[in-house]
Amino acid sequence: MSLFDFEKVQYLGNSELNAGKGFNFYNADELVAGKPMKEWLKFSVAYWHTMDQRLTDPFGDGTALRPWDNVTDPMEQALVKVDYMFEFMDKLGVEYFAFHDRDLAPEGSSLKETNENLDRVIDKIEEKMQETGKKLLWNTASLFTNPRFVAGGATTPFADVFAYSAAQIKHSLEIAKRLGSQSYVFWGGREGYDSILNTDMKREQKHIAAFFRLAKDYANEIGYTGQFLLEPKPKEPTTHQYDADSATTIAFLKEYNLEDDFKLNLEGNHAYLAGHTYEHEVRVAREAGMLGSLDANMGDKLIGWDIDEFPTDIYETTLVMYEFLKNGGLPTGGLNFDSKVRRQSFEVEDLFYAHMAGMDTYAAGLKVAAKLIEDRVFDDVIEDRYSSFDSGIGADFEAGKLTLVDFENYVLGKTDAEILATTKSGHLERLKATLNNYIFSVLGK
Amino acid sequence: MSLFDFEKVQYLGNSELNAGKGFNFYNADELVAGKPMKEWLKFSVAYWHTMDQRLTDPFGDGTALRPWDNVTDPMEQALVKVDYMFEFMDKLGVEYFAFHDRDLAPEGSSLKETNENLDRVIDKIEEKMQETGKKLLWNTASLFTNPRFVAGGATTPFADVFAYSAAQIKHSLEIAKRLGSQSYVFWGGREGYDSILNTDMKREQKHIAAFFRLAKDYANEIGYTGQFLLEPKPKEPTTHQYDADSATTIAFLKEYNLEDDFKLNLEGNHAYLAGHTYEHEVRVAREAGMLGSLDANMGDKLIGWDIDEFPTDIYETTLVMYEFLKNGGLPTGGLNFDSKVRRQSFEVEDLFYAHMAGMDTYAAGLKVAAKLIEDRVFDDVIEDRYSSFDSGIGADFEAGKLTLVDFENYVLGKTDAEILATTKSGHLERLKATLNNYIFSVLGK
Amino acid sequence: MSLFDFEKVQYLGNSELNAGKGFNFYNADELVAGKPMKEWLKFSVAYWHTMDQRLTDPFGDGTALRPWDNVTDPMEQALVKVDYMFEFMDKLGVEYFAFHDRDLAPEGSSLKETNENLDRVIDKIEEKMQETGKKLLWNTASLFTNPRFVAGGATTPFADVFAYSAAQIKHSLEIAKRLGSQSYVFWGGREGYDSILNTDMKREQKHIAAFFRLAKDYANEIGYTGQFLLEPKPKEPTTHQYDADSATTIAFLKEYNLEDDFKLNLEGNHAYLAGHTYEHEVRVAREAGMLGSLDANMGDKLIGWDIDEFPTDIYETTLVMYEFLKNGGLPTGGLNFDSKVRRQSFEVEDLFYAHMAGMDTYAAGLKVAAKLIEDRVFDDVIEDRYSSFDSGIGADFEAGKLTLVDFENYVLGKTDAEILATTKSGHLERLKATLNNYIFSVLGK
Amino acid sequence: MSLFDFEKVQYLGNSELNAGKGFNFYNADELVAGKPMKEWLKFSVAYWHTMDQRLTDPFGDGTALRPWDNVTDPMEQALVKVDYMFEFMDKLGVEYFAFHDRDLAPEGSSLKETNENLDRVIDKIEEKMQETGKKLLWNTASLFTNPRFVAGGATTPFADVFAYSAAQIKHSLEIAKRLGSQSYVFWGGREGYDSILNTDMKREQKHIAAFFRLAKDYANEIGYTGQFLLEPKPKEPTTHQYDADSATTIAFLKEYNLEDDFKLNLEGNHAYLAGHTYEHEVRVAREAGMLGSLDANMGDKLIGWDIDEFPTDIYETTLVMYEFLKNGGLPTGGLNFDSKVRRQSFEVEDLFYAHMAGMDTYAAGLKVAAKLIEDRVFDDVIEDRYSSFDSGIGADFEAGKLTLVDFENYVLGKTDAEILATTKSGHLERLKATLNNYIFSVLGK
Repeated sequence: MSLFDFEKVQYLGNSELNAGKGFNFYNADELVAGKPMKEWLKFSVAYWHTMDQRLTDPFGDGTALRPWDNVTDPMEQALVKVDYMFEFMDKLGVEYFAFHDRDLAPEGSSLKETNENLDRVIDKIEEKMQETGKKLLWNTASLFTNPRFVAGGATTPFADVFAYSAAQIKHSLEIAKRLGSQSYVFWGGREGYDSILNTDMKREQKHIAAFFRLAKDYANEIGYTGQFLLEPKPKEPTTHQYDADSATTIAFLKEYNLEDDFKLNLEGNHAYLAGHTYEHEVRVAREAGMLGSLDANMGDKLIGWDIDEFPTDIYETTLVMYEFLKNGGLPTGGLNFDSKVRRQSFEVEDLFYAHMAGMDTYAAGLKVAAKLIEDRVFDDVIEDRYSSFDSGIGADFEAGKLTLVDFENYVLGKTDAEILATTKSGHLERLKATLNNYIFSVLGK
Repeated sequence: MSLFDFEKVQYLGNSELNAGKGFNFYNADELVAGKPMKEWLKFSVAYWHTMDQRLTDPFGDGTALRPWDNVTDPMEQALVKVDYMFEFMDKLGVEYFAFHDRDLAPEGSSLKETNENLDRVIDKIEEKMQETGKKLLWNTASLFTNPRFVAGGATTPFADVFAYSAAQIKHSLEIAKRLGSQSYVFWGGREGYDSILNTDMKREQKHIAAFFRLAKDYANEIGYTGQFLLEPKPKEPTTHQYDADSATTIAFLKEYNLEDDFKLNLEGNHAYLAGHTYEHEVRVAREAGMLGSLDANMGDKLIGWDIDEFPTDIYETTLVMYEFLKNGGLPTGGLNFDSKVRRQSFEVEDLFYAHMAGMDTYAAGLKVAAKLIEDRVFDDVIEDRYSSFDSGIGADFEAGKLTLVDFENYVLGKTDAEILATTKSGHLERLKATLNNYIFSVLGK
Repeated sequence: MSLFDFEKVQYLGNSELNAGKGFNFYNADELVAGKPMKEWLKFSVAYWHTMDQRLTDPFGDGTALRPWDNVTDPMEQALVKVDYMFEFMDKLGVEYFAFHDRDLAPEGSSLKETNENLDRVIDKIEEKMQETGKKLLWNTASLFTNPRFVAGGATTPFADVFAYSAAQIKHSLEIAKRLGSQSYVFWGGREGYDSILNTDMKREQKHIAAFFRLAKDYANEIGYTGQFLLEPKPKEPTTHQYDADSATTIAFLKEYNLEDDFKLNLEGNHAYLAGHTYEHEVRVAREAGMLGSLDANMGDKLIGWDIDEFPTDIYETTLVMYEFLKNGGLPTGGLNFDSKVRRQSFEVEDLFYAHMAGMDTYAAGLKVAAKLIEDRVFDDVIEDRYSSFDSGIGADFEAGKLTLVDFENYVLGKTDAEILATTKSGHLERLKATLNNYIFSVLGK
Repeated sequence: MSLFDFEKVQYLGNSELNAGKGFNFYNADELVAGKPMKEWLKFSVAYWHTMDQRLTDPFGDGTALRPWDNVTDPMEQALVKVDYMFEFMDKLGVEYFAFHDRDLAPEGSSLKETNENLDRVIDKIEEKMQETGKKLLWNTASLFTNPRFVAGGATTPFADVFAYSAAQIKHSLEIAKRLGSQSYVFWGGREGYDSILNTDMKREQKHIAAFFRLAKDYANEIGYTGQFLLEPKPKEPTTHQYDADSATTIAFLKEYNLEDDFKLNLEGNHAYLAGHTYEHEVRVAREAGMLGSLDANMGDKLIGWDIDEFPTDIYETTLVMYEFLKNGGLPTGGLNFDSKVRRQSFEVEDLFYAHMAGMDTYAAGLKVAAKLIEDRVFDDVIEDRYSSFDSGIGADFEAGKLTLVDFENYVLGKTDAEILATTKSGHLERLKATLNNYIFSVLGK
């Protein structure tokens, strides 16, 4: 018997093209690049979007009513939601989940009460995890929803609020330890400034760096060994968020000597807001050895805020999976659906459709990326393109043997025409067509 | 013997996937939706990007050298370019082309001299057209390159410049007539304002409306019957261009009673700059009966200017071709590659690769769109979604039978819950997954 | 005795510069351009931002607690809020206010109940208006907050929801009539589309046009003579809102023959989202004879959503007031503060500070604009700039005497150099410096 | 006798407000914050925009003709331009200038020839500098204009091009040494990528880091002690420029241990393109001890490319000068007008008007900023706002005395209401109004 009151979800209406199949590309046991898909693609359901989201927006009340909304007592509802969550993961065939502390249980009138509420739900989650084998991809603490965080959680100008944040993180880390969370994430929703006129940016950044250090020290103390992750995001809610993008966040970590203890959790829609592609952000983190985990969503590049749409763009999933495979996958990370159904998709079935669409598009991307790597499509192009640094003056330079004087001597013996003749076309249009053809060839039936 | 000094272009390096084929999807004679592809897809080569573009940008000199650059006398070069242009179209297998007057021949020191230069090239083009059967999709006049147009062509505050524009258009229309141009395009590159502080917007708009009227009158006088088209574009070069997007341009045409004489020439990259998708702009024009022709290019939604990239996004070509087919194609329009190769793609071969990539992606989009229409994928969704207006109170409303009082009476008999129960999910994620599956199914081999 | 529990608000802490003054520039009785400021500047307090806003954002709960939050019964609170609202207007010295129907009273479980709740509050407002002489600048109906409007109010695909919208508007117009509302506003918060894949745009637009016609017919029937206004806004909540900007909205009105019955209510932040300056939007509406009323707010051009910030940019208020004065003011319109205090400005005092800052900046802008007009600063520049159309060939053209042939004859007698010599510099930097100097000269003490 | 053929430039047409004055606020010898304005404001004329810019844009030929365009021989013109440049600085009353190597002299057909051409002009410049006392604020090398830099200067995949860049920089540093340039700037116009598909980002970044190291080594070798500066800029010409903004550039410098040898040269318009305010970028650099020099320009936040407009926004100049004064000025930096006149402002006089407008607006900003600092307007606000970290638990935290356990103990003794009560309004609207009032009070006459 199912808690969800609906018929078996049919993935697509068009029976001719997709007769009776749940997925078109996602196949947990299919081998890709030498491993079963399910080992590469550690999909995770986000508690907040799936269980707590009613599809409100700044202009209107929620459009979704969930089965658990019938339970009106907040604590009872919190406990019932756990059952629904685990049934949802089970039906969907997903192994991982992720949550903020405040997604799970209502707050009380003091941290003590709030922790007690939370612990009751954690007890049940722990039990369910043991029962089902589902795992926690990551957890995090909400230092942004409650009004006390109006001017920041760890960058607040108010010492008592800072103290609250520190105490809240302590408990949240204990939960991570208890549930064996693969990673622990910090998203600095309120860590930025509204107005430069009343902000001491440097003092705020020193505070948050010390805060991260305290958190890591405490994790060490209690023996929590999950990976710590920062999640960059620009512009929202404030124009100037401190962790704006991969590069900025890595800079911050280096400045405060935190780079050995933290990696990044990246997200597609956040990338766009920072003026980047998702694959760019992933590349930057990968090359810095800082790629921790991925939030699987996308946005709309024509609008300027975060919409957390389920990912269905094959170009993006292919290029992100390309970086992912080049990284050897993500040992402690996964693909968390930080994605919400559109306001119009308010039926429970849509939660299934949407996750399945996202899983399928990432599975499709993984297959295309694996084939691109297997065939060395871009590797050969790049190897050839930079080959002048593999011998001669290029190699001498890379070996650190040359000075500006050496270069001048080299160039003074040449005409401009000779130099120009060494440049080669990047054939960018041909590369884009090649990518298209790989997508259609690999995914076509 | 070929004017182009290179081996037969191989479309893609990957021989396994695309053994020896020029195109993957474009097949001139293949039937799609009951017509050969070549009849739907009237591809056109743009003279300016293909023959005149050296791949300069605001930060650097051109990177491309073309075979015809060896000819140093400007008039001789202009004549030689005609041979290259026709060979290019022939090799590529494209039937149409498009040009601005100033793409073709150098300007003299007076309109008289300039017209004489131009006419010599037109003579040669006319001859080549008769010889090869190639056709002119559209021509236009450049009222933006010359410094005299610093403050506009038809919206200039300087009467002599306005006079020049009018005289230039006269000759340009005579060329359209002579070469049998399917359409005649106006892009108002300088028709907008730099600063509201020194601009009389209304007077400028009256001028340009009168200008269009004079042009149409003259076309009638000389018996030129091609379709007149306006090409909307926002923000570039000025923040406030008058013809910003489809809706704004249609508004202008209606305001000045020009809507029966003009349609629109739309472009993908222009759409993004206006904050729209390309398919939105095409839909707006189609529903207004104003869809004239299409510029086949794309842009980068992460940057704020027009890059005129060759189109390789299957989502966009599919949805644009969907509107196109719903429009019954474009009787007097086509798909003009207002696209330029990237600055890095500076070899002559790249001109071929790029056009072929664009043609293939539009051909692929056409095939997917035709199948979506054949299967009534979106039509059925839409028909069902709006069905409450096909009977009952919805139908009565559409028939004009009801007043606000009637509606109030109807609603006062219902509870809010009853009303809410009539809303249905839009299943947007499922729709996007369906689109993906059609793309992969139709294009896979 | 005051309902508000705080000391007299001191506008600015810096006593030396602003000793003891509430305002620096706003002075109700001071004559500007021949009229007292208060007659030009019909400032209006927005019920929703001032009474109902708790400063929530998509990432957190409200930070503001208001005195009336102590009253927990919704209807009682609704009635108590009226007292606070009128005291607020009185303390601030503002004559007008504006509201959505749903700002005022809680919804019931049917339209009947909802209307009854609303009418109780309207009774009290009517009484207060008679008592205090305060006036209603405009009212409107919220066809966006309730979940039933998930896919539109008047463009919904669901006929019963459409019926509800129609019935709701009927009652809202009766309120407008009863309270003597100067204007009646429609903001189409849900009138746009989420996805083109499931949208019949044309059918939706026909529906909303008919809806407006029904509304106007009913207003005529009950003798409500206030000005009807549409409020353009792009991108929010959906990427494609139908009334995207001034030009688009005017186009819609003309298409459906509504242009004689409607004008526009414009807003600064909406302009930015559409890629325009506020003064551009006002100019477009003014030149079309469509300028109805103004929402006084501003945004942040570096972010892509509506923040409804109180207006404090002297450049913008000056240029908007310039258009406003050129329009002869706004007979039925005013300056409604569709502005909310920042999330950090959560104290009641901030409501005063913020309105006072906005009033002062608009008053300052009015003074600068009046002086710019009095001195004919821009008028002289423009008159001179277009003067070549006041005589000779320019005047003949404007008089409709010329054809393209005439222009060609004129130009063929001239060299390019002669034509170019008629162009003149726009001296844009000098104009901007002039604007600065007027601002500092007029506002300096 | 003057080389410039025009009457004495009158700053503003409105004689009543600005009778006969060249400047309204800039007064070289006026004391501000204890120093003469001219010592704070080391304004610099940019050779490229003032001498070489013909006001082309991507859609049209240049509109400006300069007096030196009469000299047709390129080397002769290059030498004559030096006279004009020094007369221009003299007339304007500006002490500094800046140039790219390629602004000064035409390129030959080899580096040898190019260097010879350049050295002839440098000889003349050196002579003029001695004669007039004018100084070089900074020089730089153009590694972006020539087609050889199609894929980068120091990040090019082509070793010979890299060699050319290295050799070019060598000569450019010798010029810096010879002319006593205060700083040496690197703007990486081509250092970024067009497509991630063919880019080895990490190898490219290692190359450019080594390049900078070689440059610094050579500077040390020849005894050039000017400050090295990187100039961040995002998105233009490629979507992904490596030095996107202050934070990203500082991250790069730290990653490659270059942070002791480099500072930043920041620019207003670049800030906007990166999604930041100019004052933000300056603050980030200042707090990192990395503020080197400033490019004085502004842009249009409504469009997505660099327009290099002369700065006339008093808000921006005030807040940038605020950071500047907090930095104690810029020992080796200045305010370089990386600004060009608008395409419409094509007369020689406009070069004067525009520079004067920019100088005046920065002088005005300096005066306002000095008064804001003198009155401790923002300092007092900030001191008070963060005061809870100056004693008690906040101070203990800053002193490193606390762990998460201590914080938990502290918080468990409090209710949520007690914690919330410690937060205070940021009064952002009042702060913005205060800023307005300072501007009007300080600048009013």
